[in-house]
Amino acid sequence: MTVTDDNPPPDTGLAQDAHVVGIDIGGTKTLVVLMGAEGVILARSSRPTAQGPEAVIDLLVALVEELVEVLGEEGTVIGVGVGVAGLVDIDGRLCRAPNLTDADEFPIRDLLEERLGMAVWVDNDANCAARAELAVGAAVGIEDAILVTLGTGIGGALIAHGEVVRGAAGMAGELGHMVVDPKGPVCMCGLTGCWERYASGAGLARLARLAAERGDLTSVMSSIDGTTADLRGEHITQAARLGDNEAVAVLDVFAWWVSLGLANACAFSDPKMIVIGGGLVADWDLFGDRVREHLAELTVAASHRPVIEVRPAVGGESAGALGAALLAANQCG
Amino acid sequence: MTVTDDNPPPDTGLAQDAHVVGIDIGGTKTLVVLMGAEGVILARSSRPTAQGPEAVIDLLVALVEELVEVLGEEGTVIGVGVGVAGLVDIDGRLCRAPNLTDADEFPIRDLLEERLGMAVWVDNDANCAARAELAVGAAVGIEDAILVTLGTGIGGALIAHGEVVRGAAGMAGELGHMVVDPKGPVCMCGLTGCWERYASGAGLARLARLAAERGDLTSVMSSIDGTTADLRGEHITQAARLGDNEAVAVLDVFAWWVSLGLANACAFSDPKMIVIGGGLVADWDLFGDRVREHLAELTVAASHRPVIEVRPAVGGESAGALGAALLAANQCG
Repeated sequence: MTVTDDNPPPDTGLAQDAHVVGIDIGGTKTLVVLMGAEGVILARSSRPTAQGPEAVIDLLVALVEELVEVLGEEGTVIGVGVGVAGLVDIDGRLCRAPNLTDADEFPIRDLLEERLGMAVWVDNDANCAARAELAVGAAVGIEDAILVTLGTGIGGALIAHGEVVRGAAGMAGELGHMVVDPKGPVCMCGLTGCWERYASGAGLARLARLAAERGDLTSVMSSIDGTTADLRGEHITQAARLGDNEAVAVLDVFAWWVSLGLANACAFSDPKMIVIGGGLVADWDLFGDRVREHLAELTVAASHRPVIEVRPAVGGESAGALGAALLAANQCG
Repeated sequence: MTVTDDNPPPDTGLAQDAHVVGIDIGGTKTLVVLMGAEGVILARSSRPTAQGPEAVIDLLVALVEELVEVLGEEGTVIGVGVGVAGLVDIDGRLCRAPNLTDADEFPIRDLLEERLGMAVWVDNDANCAARAELAVGAAVGIEDAILVTLGTGIGGALIAHGEVVRGAAGMAGELGHMVVDPKGPVCMCGLTGCWERYASGAGLARLARLAAERGDLTSVMSSIDGTTADLRGEHITQAARLGDNEAVAVLDVFAWWVSLGLANACAFSDPKMIVIGGGLVADWDLFGDRVREHLAELTVAASHRPVIEVRPAVGGESAGALGAALLAANQCG
């Protein structure tokens, strides 16, 4: 995410010389940024994500201390924001961790505050990405928005009154676990027919397997050396990109399910804009237009309201860390 | 809704001697209240709801002028809030009117402002009821909440950061039109499998018909002089109240569907409290506990968060008019 004239640095509300650190703990990489009072990123780095709670805390401490050293006499780090995939409660505890080993019920905030001796805030990675999109990304100036990340699973953020809604327990935005088909497949969360079973990367793979089991996807199946169980979302997007009609058809079904969940969210929060992030956004050109078309059919009272804009996130890799820094700045400022 | 020591009058932000009028256009009755700067209701009245756009406007004008006359030299009415069932856009146009004849695309705000020569704000009745519950009802002091009205249809309101979210087009809270079963029955809105087809009064009647067609509900069917098509929700609640096990079973299925939609809304906005209003709340004692039990099963990560409180609205008949007055006060103050 680049700060340009179109997107001036966000207003941090921090005192002069005050700095915050933003960290994004991803599935493979942990990114960190140092943000100054003017909202400009002064330094950044990344490391492979550590595994195991102790190693994660050790890594985060090392990354923050490195930036404190970089800053030297130039100013003070007064707070740290952390974004991480999974269910994060309002006390900065990672309750359920899809990407980290043995990290369920992991009190990141408390452990990190104790080690660093400074204030720490922890939030879900989608909420952090939403803060970045609001501040300098696709949703600058938007009061009502939804951010949805389509990756292996689905993440989400609700934006109302121009701000990310954390919710009473800190768990707002868990759109992937809206039930959209009570007779559907069981989800890893224990519920049945969650949106995530249809509209995520794993959902696309599942739709592909169902198509292959019906005898469709003949070219894709002959190109992979395996059974339907080996089908992944990438096989579909790659084949669709080459013009395979059967793959395009699966992607259209996928786009319909994406739109169904978006329409449900729109019925509730009536956004001006939906921002789509996550790994699948790399193939947005393949299915984005179909999502927009289906959304127009599936949104209640679509004919009575302006078209809800759906656009890809612009934050890219560092949006999570930037948003985590903004979370800390917002709390410290 | 009574103003008591527990629930002091809401802070209106109005200047001394400034007053607002709140109107609730219901299916059968139109209620009106006069609110003073201290948030106290100074006068109220009601009339049968008029039919036809012109007659509706004539009635609203007459009701406001009556209150202006009551007030006399004691102060000034500076704004009018109107709540009405249906889809209301941000410009105070009633786009779709379930209860009023020939009133689709009815620009209530503009017509009323022209006739009255004062500022008018129009919002959905559920949003108005939510304002009343927030100010002096079940949700005082709550930052994150959902209000759902279970009547013939389903209305809803999203409360975030302590305020009702209107959404970009003014249509937030249309929870009844979340699709919860894409293979379900067609809804009057044109979509398929809307929550309203299961969890409203009409939904309860539909579930009852399905049960009767399967051969259940034998006692209820023998007590009504008619076919399954004559079954209404009241037949089920009345029979359940008398201990009819088959009716209790239908009500339990109904409660499950109520909880499913609530759980979807909770996944998105993570409320501290859900307030249930609408006509069906009169039978809350029959199915409220079951709703709470099913909600605990259907809410994602229920074991990681505090129990989401579900309670009946306390606003009663005048909540809509009071909330409409608060809408006007909030805009004028």
